[in-house]
Amino acid sequence: MLNLIIADSELELIPFDMLEDYAIRKYAKKKNKPAKEIILDSNFMHGAIDRYYPGKSNRMGRPDIIYIVLQVAMESILNKKGKLRVFVHTKNNMIITINPETRIPKSYNRFVGLMEDLFKKEEIRSGDNILLSLSEGHVEDLVPQIGAGRTVVFSPRGAVSRIGEVISTDEDITAIIGGFSEGDYVSNVYDLGKSVSIYEEELTIWSVASEAIAEYERVLGVV
Amino acid sequence: MLNLIIADSELELIPFDMLEDYAIRKYAKKKNKPAKEIILDSNFMHGAIDRYYPGKSNRMGRPDIIYIVLQVAMESILNKKGKLRVFVHTKNNMIITINPETRIPKSYNRFVGLMEDLFKKEEIRSGDNILLSLSEGHVEDLVPQIGAGRTVVFSPRGAVSRIGEVISTDEDITAIIGGFSEGDYVSNVYDLGKSVSIYEEELTIWSVASEAIAEYERVLGVV
Repeated sequence: MLNLIIADSELELIPFDMLEDYAIRKYAKKKNKPAKEIILDSNFMHGAIDRYYPGKSNRMGRPDIIYIVLQVAMESILNKKGKLRVFVHTKNNMIITINPETRIPKSYNRFVGLMEDLFKKEEIRSGDNILLSLSEGHVEDLVPQIGAGRTVVFSPRGAVSRIGEVISTDEDITAIIGGFSEGDYVSNVYDLGKSVSIYEEELTIWSVASEAIAEYERVLGVV
Repeated sequence: MLNLIIADSELELIPFDMLEDYAIRKYAKKKNKPAKEIILDSNFMHGAIDRYYPGKSNRMGRPDIIYIVLQVAMESILNKKGKLRVFVHTKNNMIITINPETRIPKSYNRFVGLMEDLFKKEEIRSGDNILLSLSEGHVEDLVPQIGAGRTVVFSPRGAVSRIGEVISTDEDITAIIGGFSEGDYVSNVYDLGKSVSIYEEELTIWSVASEAIAEYERVLGVV
């Protein structure tokens, strides 16, 4: 099994101190939802983020990159073969557990709407199946809980290694990838396992996930 | 070199006969753009598409899947190593040539805006560099033009093959992947090369692209 943990993800509801911002209020009115039930999204709230968290508008509010990495992971052959489990850990220590059968909406807007539903209801069901569930938790606790096998922390700070060296057997592996676009982890992930960098330049988080998935598919022989 | 052609892509401006639809006019007003300069997007125009093209609203107007496959391709290690060229051929026989240095906007809305600019100006530049260019052309003509090496057509109709059998040497390869979510190619792509299916169920177009890229990276030894 490959456990993929997207850690310290910049996925959160609009922070409390931003709720009265005029641009946020306008956005909420347009969306016809209370501002406190809306996912922070720097694509639409760049200015507002910079007013409250100067210089943070590239890092904060990035459901977009979570959406892409989930499209890549959940639609992979590895997932269809039942050999992938995906968790999204957020910067506020919430953990989203994703049922492998979940289809992530192809529409970005619908994806964000789904996350808003999840943050409100803490669970998304389809009949008796729980597709997505939200609970409190630290990534440091999640790793032992899921019986994670060997843990690898992907980070530009890690030792440069080829992905084929990082993943070379069919043992259970937990791959931790940062759910942010710049900067470093805030959780103590470096204590959880060896940190590695698979390319000399920074990669997007879905490129890293894609390489880990592709390599694990090949060692398992499922492609 | 791996040449990736996304063929018969459901990427187009709002068709002429839909321009007077009330929902389209409302959408154009909200976007503050003439309707004829707006990309057809079934995420927002589902009802309108079904009024003019009954039953087609899942297939038509899918910039979303083109956006995801371009994020996967352009951010891949293969592209960073200069070994990938990407072309988007559309259902209306337009061809988008993408400079390998192009960064696809992370924001979906900005991506759609970029496509609208491209359809209007036929070229997107950054200084002296042409990042994206749009020209008329058929996929059948594009393949010989680009000196494409062996051509492989990915299709659920193709012979079931492992990706490692499809791509097993570092020769130049052209991979044709359909830029649509359901149904079959409309261009005569099956005459261009062997058609293959790499999984027993349908895959998303970015999962297919991802597997082709991953395998080619491994035969080239760039990962």
